Amino acid sequence: MEPEIKKLCIHTITTKPWNVEQAAENFSVAGVGGITVWRQALEGRNIVQTGDLLRNHGLEIVSLCRGGFFPSTSAGQRRLNIDDNLSALDEAAALGAPLIVLVCGADPDQPLEVSRDQIRAGIETLLPRAEELGVKLAIEPLHPMYADTRSAINTLGQANDMAEAIGSHYVGVAVDVYHLWWDRALEHEITRCGQRGNLLAFHICDWKFPFDDILNDRGLMGEGCINVPQIRAWVESAGFIGFNEVEIFSNRYWSMDQHEFLSKIIEAYEQHS
Amino acid sequence: MEPEIKKLCIHTITTKPWNVEQAAENFSVAGVGGITVWRQALEGRNIVQTGDLLRNHGLEIVSLCRGGFFPSTSAGQRRLNIDDNLSALDEAAALGAPLIVLVCGADPDQPLEVSRDQIRAGIETLLPRAEELGVKLAIEPLHPMYADTRSAINTLGQANDMAEAIGSHYVGVAVDVYHLWWDRALEHEITRCGQRGNLLAFHICDWKFPFDDILNDRGLMGEGCINVPQIRAWVESAGFIGFNEVEIFSNRYWSMDQHEFLSKIIEAYEQHS
Repeated sequence: MEPEIKKLCIHTITTKPWNVEQAAENFSVAGVGGITVWRQALEGRNIVQTGDLLRNHGLEIVSLCRGGFFPSTSAGQRRLNIDDNLSALDEAAALGAPLIVLVCGADPDQPLEVSRDQIRAGIETLLPRAEELGVKLAIEPLHPMYADTRSAINTLGQANDMAEAIGSHYVGVAVDVYHLWWDRALEHEITRCGQRGNLLAFHICDWKFPFDDILNDRGLMGEGCINVPQIRAWVESAGFIGFNEVEIFSNRYWSMDQHEFLSKIIEAYEQHS
Repeated sequence: MEPEIKKLCIHTITTKPWNVEQAAENFSVAGVGGITVWRQALEGRNIVQTGDLLRNHGLEIVSLCRGGFFPSTSAGQRRLNIDDNLSALDEAAALGAPLIVLVCGADPDQPLEVSRDQIRAGIETLLPRAEELGVKLAIEPLHPMYADTRSAINTLGQANDMAEAIGSHYVGVAVDVYHLWWDRALEHEITRCGQRGNLLAFHICDWKFPFDDILNDRGLMGEGCINVPQIRAWVESAGFIGFNEVEIFSNRYWSMDQHEFLSKIIEAYEQHS
């Protein structure tokens, strides 16, 4: 079944050439229902007023991207990382975002198990402040090709395990098709994630091949080999009723006219999601 | 414990600028114990005589690379793929290679589950001929970043499952650190693989970051974030007594003097494997 336009959320990074005010205006005119704000889009702005601006455009603020990057071989750096996450929590609360997405981090100079322990410790350190502010944290498992420096959490099974081990209503999981599509356990782990009440966000795009850039060459839905409608059906069967968030990093799309790109996003959303 | 030089095997693709005769001569002089031959290195040659040449240089022929690439949406193409694998079996027998490594393939125009079924069917089709020739087949799980077009088998768990389901003494698994290092189940699956008698090959290199090329920018052991000695210890604890095979695709290394590169391989093998 075709997804509803009001369930479409777009990340500010997706249309990076637009500032947050332009994004708000253009998303709103197009009928987009939600926006996920990347922290760099808030630089130099009054965050409370920016939140009001977004809501006044009829946009629901879905989440703030991104926190995380907890691990380091250096204890001093780990403390700085916590401070930065505490700032992100304050920003989310000021903006009125109910959720922060965590790209959990990895330090290539230490074993992945050590990074995983530091991720869990980092999340637990943030938890009291998250509860106080009413902002949830979503562990986003990243594709194994990012296990060197970006995340030591590389499957939905791992993210589910960690969320369940922490066992807080304020910690859950973000499912991104780009990172997880290849995993034969995906349907099972999505069901588990939903059943435990941990399915907090759903990100979509497509896996283009070959890609020109390991970070910034994601495809629009329908351009690659991910069966987005299938994964969305699993997510919805698991009880998820939130937004379908288009998160695309693409040098190719960032270099085109962003109005034209927005039309393409909506077309791809309606036809291939 | 430092690995033995006589347990070092190098793939012909690793020193691609050398033809197979040059590789044989130079590997032999350096004390390398084994060679894995890529099929393109045999083009235009008498394969039986090439096998003799390698053995006369004191090199053990460890395997032939590579078979596989079974899946396709087209039945005609799948038959051509089988024919090509049958040719590879004949080549392995002529060369005197006891093993063919399978990069199993994936067709992005069909679901991964379908590709997996076609892989199993393809291997089972080859099996009578493999048994007749005395050549084993090793399923090599590939990194999930290659799930689009190169392999629908992306974890050691999947490869173990398939090898066990096929249940033939002629089908096992090749463990390559580059593809599998990130998997938290790796130690467990290596143990399982060895216990079932399915651990047929062990490939080493390192995961450089950031890499310039998704295929051809692998690192020498010690250049990246893979703990090769740890994984080798797991493989040996699982009962593996075969070669440590250096398989590196690298535009960077292919462009340097190959004698100098061979010295670097041996140094990296002795110090970081």
